[in-house]
Amino acid sequence: MNSYQLNLKTLLDRSARYFPDNEIVSREADGSLFRYNYAQFYDRVRRLANALNSLGIKKGDKIASFAWNNYRHLELYWGIPCYGAVLHTVNIRYGEPEIVHSINHAEDKVLFFDKDLLPTIEAIAHQLPKVKAYVILGDTIPKTTLSPLYCYEELLSQTDSNFCFEELEENTPATICYTSATTALPKGVAYTQRSIYLHASALCHTDVMGISEHDHILPIVPMFHVNAWGLPYAAIATGAKLVLPGERPKANELLELIESEKITYAAGAVTLGVDMLTILEKRPYNLSSLRKLHLGGQAVPKAIIEKFFYKYGVPIVQGFGATETSPMVSFTRIRRDQKQLSDDEKINICCRQGMLIPGLEVKIVDELGEEVPWDDEHMGELLVRGPWIASEYYNDERSLSAFVDGWWRSGDIATINKQGSIRIVDRNKDVIKSGGEWISSVQLENELMAHPSVLEACVVAIPHEKWLERPLACVLLKKGQNNTNMEGELIDWLTPKFPKWWLPDQIMFVDEIPKNANGKYNKNLLRKMVSQTLLT
Amino acid sequence: MNSYQLNLKTLLDRSARYFPDNEIVSREADGSLFRYNYAQFYDRVRRLANALNSLGIKKGDKIASFAWNNYRHLELYWGIPCYGAVLHTVNIRYGEPEIVHSINHAEDKVLFFDKDLLPTIEAIAHQLPKVKAYVILGDTIPKTTLSPLYCYEELLSQTDSNFCFEELEENTPATICYTSATTALPKGVAYTQRSIYLHASALCHTDVMGISEHDHILPIVPMFHVNAWGLPYAAIATGAKLVLPGERPKANELLELIESEKITYAAGAVTLGVDMLTILEKRPYNLSSLRKLHLGGQAVPKAIIEKFFYKYGVPIVQGFGATETSPMVSFTRIRRDQKQLSDDEKINICCRQGMLIPGLEVKIVDELGEEVPWDDEHMGELLVRGPWIASEYYNDERSLSAFVDGWWRSGDIATINKQGSIRIVDRNKDVIKSGGEWISSVQLENELMAHPSVLEACVVAIPHEKWLERPLACVLLKKGQNNTNMEGELIDWLTPKFPKWWLPDQIMFVDEIPKNANGKYNKNLLRKMVSQTLLT
Repeated sequence: MNSYQLNLKTLLDRSARYFPDNEIVSREADGSLFRYNYAQFYDRVRRLANALNSLGIKKGDKIASFAWNNYRHLELYWGIPCYGAVLHTVNIRYGEPEIVHSINHAEDKVLFFDKDLLPTIEAIAHQLPKVKAYVILGDTIPKTTLSPLYCYEELLSQTDSNFCFEELEENTPATICYTSATTALPKGVAYTQRSIYLHASALCHTDVMGISEHDHILPIVPMFHVNAWGLPYAAIATGAKLVLPGERPKANELLELIESEKITYAAGAVTLGVDMLTILEKRPYNLSSLRKLHLGGQAVPKAIIEKFFYKYGVPIVQGFGATETSPMVSFTRIRRDQKQLSDDEKINICCRQGMLIPGLEVKIVDELGEEVPWDDEHMGELLVRGPWIASEYYNDERSLSAFVDGWWRSGDIATINKQGSIRIVDRNKDVIKSGGEWISSVQLENELMAHPSVLEACVVAIPHEKWLERPLACVLLKKGQNNTNMEGELIDWLTPKFPKWWLPDQIMFVDEIPKNANGKYNKNLLRKMVSQTLLT
Repeated sequence: MNSYQLNLKTLLDRSARYFPDNEIVSREADGSLFRYNYAQFYDRVRRLANALNSLGIKKGDKIASFAWNNYRHLELYWGIPCYGAVLHTVNIRYGEPEIVHSINHAEDKVLFFDKDLLPTIEAIAHQLPKVKAYVILGDTIPKTTLSPLYCYEELLSQTDSNFCFEELEENTPATICYTSATTALPKGVAYTQRSIYLHASALCHTDVMGISEHDHILPIVPMFHVNAWGLPYAAIATGAKLVLPGERPKANELLELIESEKITYAAGAVTLGVDMLTILEKRPYNLSSLRKLHLGGQAVPKAIIEKFFYKYGVPIVQGFGATETSPMVSFTRIRRDQKQLSDDEKINICCRQGMLIPGLEVKIVDELGEEVPWDDEHMGELLVRGPWIASEYYNDERSLSAFVDGWWRSGDIATINKQGSIRIVDRNKDVIKSGGEWISSVQLENELMAHPSVLEACVVAIPHEKWLERPLACVLLKKGQNNTNMEGELIDWLTPKFPKWWLPDQIMFVDEIPKNANGKYNKNLLRKMVSQTLLT
């Protein structure tokens, strides 16, 4: 046919030409809303390219961002890859060692950061020998030890928007993101112009997210987290209104944004969904514009889906994804042959991680690597491949064990039903291997969290002489709930729902369940805490 | 990221696994409906691959189809490219010279044909030295001079479905289609695995056709015509119900199919839309399942859009496309900022060829090749490029003049408005150059056809001493209409709508307007007819 390359420039140029007046909204630190349009965004993206040039940035150079979801970060999202450099979105919730490691490992030349994150950068700058310049994402330069430090607005105002993006080869790296890394140093995944393009295109399918120019999109998921699930790319490619929630958005602030900006599609962590429900109990918000609330980062408990749907009329969707997969692999879908089902039955479908997105391949395999059947009973490790699935980590020998024959081994244990819907039942390392049988910690957690007194629940394996491993549940009760007689009540609650040998041997009531940088339960830490408690 | 190849196999395997029970319906010669499901389709596609192997077909070999829209043709659509061979869909409406030329030029090794088309093939077989075998798409072998002749059903039953498609390199040619060729021998365009994949993916975007598993799709557009606008690929890739209308479908039979199979998306020639309206005047059909009726092949006259919308509640969509563009370049869309417009205003938007599909680039240029502004006034030749736009004709030196710096020169004259919506105003060779100014024959035709007495209208240039060219209109009145005083009435009808110098110098009432193989007006022939009439 031809040698036309898939790249972000084509999508950006078209949107700038077609939708100059379409709006981008960005919440500022003081809670006010900054507004501009696609024409202004495009102007600044090209100024940024000129600024990168004046900073001596070459094609292929890595550039770090350390920032919240805001319009300047969005400009980096498009300007850096279209220039031909590589945007490395550093996770601002990392501990210092992970921040330092990922910046040094990626060999970032310049670091762009938000004003309020200056102290973190100042504290580690002496450990970043390869960073040649810092840029503060604001309009003034504060007193600081960082040097050389440039001011973003000054860089942009010192140049013009007369920059013509070249047609990059589609396999040019565009962005890098590092995994959340609960157990070891983070691993980097490089996304290319092509992989981002194809992933964004899939998100626009009616049968996937159906992202459209008619949407008002609120990415709550941080922009340092797997390209904010691809939303800033799909949104700009279609011309959608994009609303960025700024620094440390709280649940009530997000609900206000949904109401005031008539958000049609919002996406964020399950924990934020829980927080939203707490707020909603106290104060009503008009959420009628929301066609979907996409929750992720972990499986969404059924109770949350039910509450959003029945009480507030908000349909929850979810999918399976990871840093290695750009991230969307599968997505909630009601099939044609399920259209006539009751709401209850449809909610059960939405409790799963959904159907494989066209273009990808998936399989579940046993410990010998053999495929297991799609009968929703056999559990297996989920393997994925396709045009936006990584085939290696960036300069990392851990690639060898994670990628096999082009397939990425997710480390997640799943079942798939006859309709092809994926259900993640556990992490490979978290599944409880009790006497040769597997017990899903996640299924136990979901049922525990469905109990009206329970806020959070986390199930881990404890060593057992005879069965090798047995489940123990850590439970955080809702405020005002008392744990007297609660252990018996929770076991009674679980009993009709699981085989007898699945029931936890013990329930431990805790004041907090530890979480990692992305808000997921930190089961390693919890296992350590539990074993110390059990020993004392 | 990785070297994963975009190809049809991935889409086919997924759909077969996810939607084994989804239905494919095919109208037989006797009007009955053949029904089977994706599992059976997949089984037969793999049997076909084994049969190709047993016929000695190698990767890259070209194989011709000469067939209507039916399930066996659909099997060729998927089986031949997934096997690694190239499907050449020969236009059954060509004259003999074009059929012979295209088969010989493509060097087709095998020719699959529908039973009722046997006489055509018998008549030309002696001119096809490179065709080594014929396959009749049926279950019996009739008496014939063709040799060797195989029976499709026999080939499939003699093998099994144990065939594993390999992962083809994405630039492997998948299908070939030849242009309609009104003035010269047809030119071939080869589509690749990648270009078909990317084009089908774009059709699934909510902002384009939004093809979904929930759709019941009726491709009326022939399957020998630019991959039936990509619908058989997008439909199978999503798992949609596909309804194929078989041989010589008449407007009433199509309306019956829409009603009985609850079609949601139908696509065919404008002329068929006109025929449907004629039938609908006499008999009601329930068309409420139709979310869109996509008409193409030429600009859709406003009167037709209005009638379908206001009288039958059917929204008409259209786009710009050609054999060289896979074919979809642009598509009707109501933008976010147009949502509040009245129905009348929205219909005006639907009269245009719509907005560029993401991933493509378009420009309009003057006779010197300079871009002209998007103000809806400046006319220019439409140029297109992108991942599913051809960059050459198949083994044809005419490529040199049609493709420039990766852009395809459409030969169509268009304007583009500030909202980016394309409006084709004429073919380059049909635009009437009157005294240095351009007159759009298509705009005159549309307004003439909006007159209640006019069925068809075609405007061509006639030579003029002073102005070089002047417009002449040929008009076919509706049945029962009388042409007495009609010339004056039609000129009065046009007068308020155009500058005075646009008005046709003469209106000629005819019994028929000649059309080419794809149902478009044959203006070359008409110009000849007109000049003969004017001379006599």
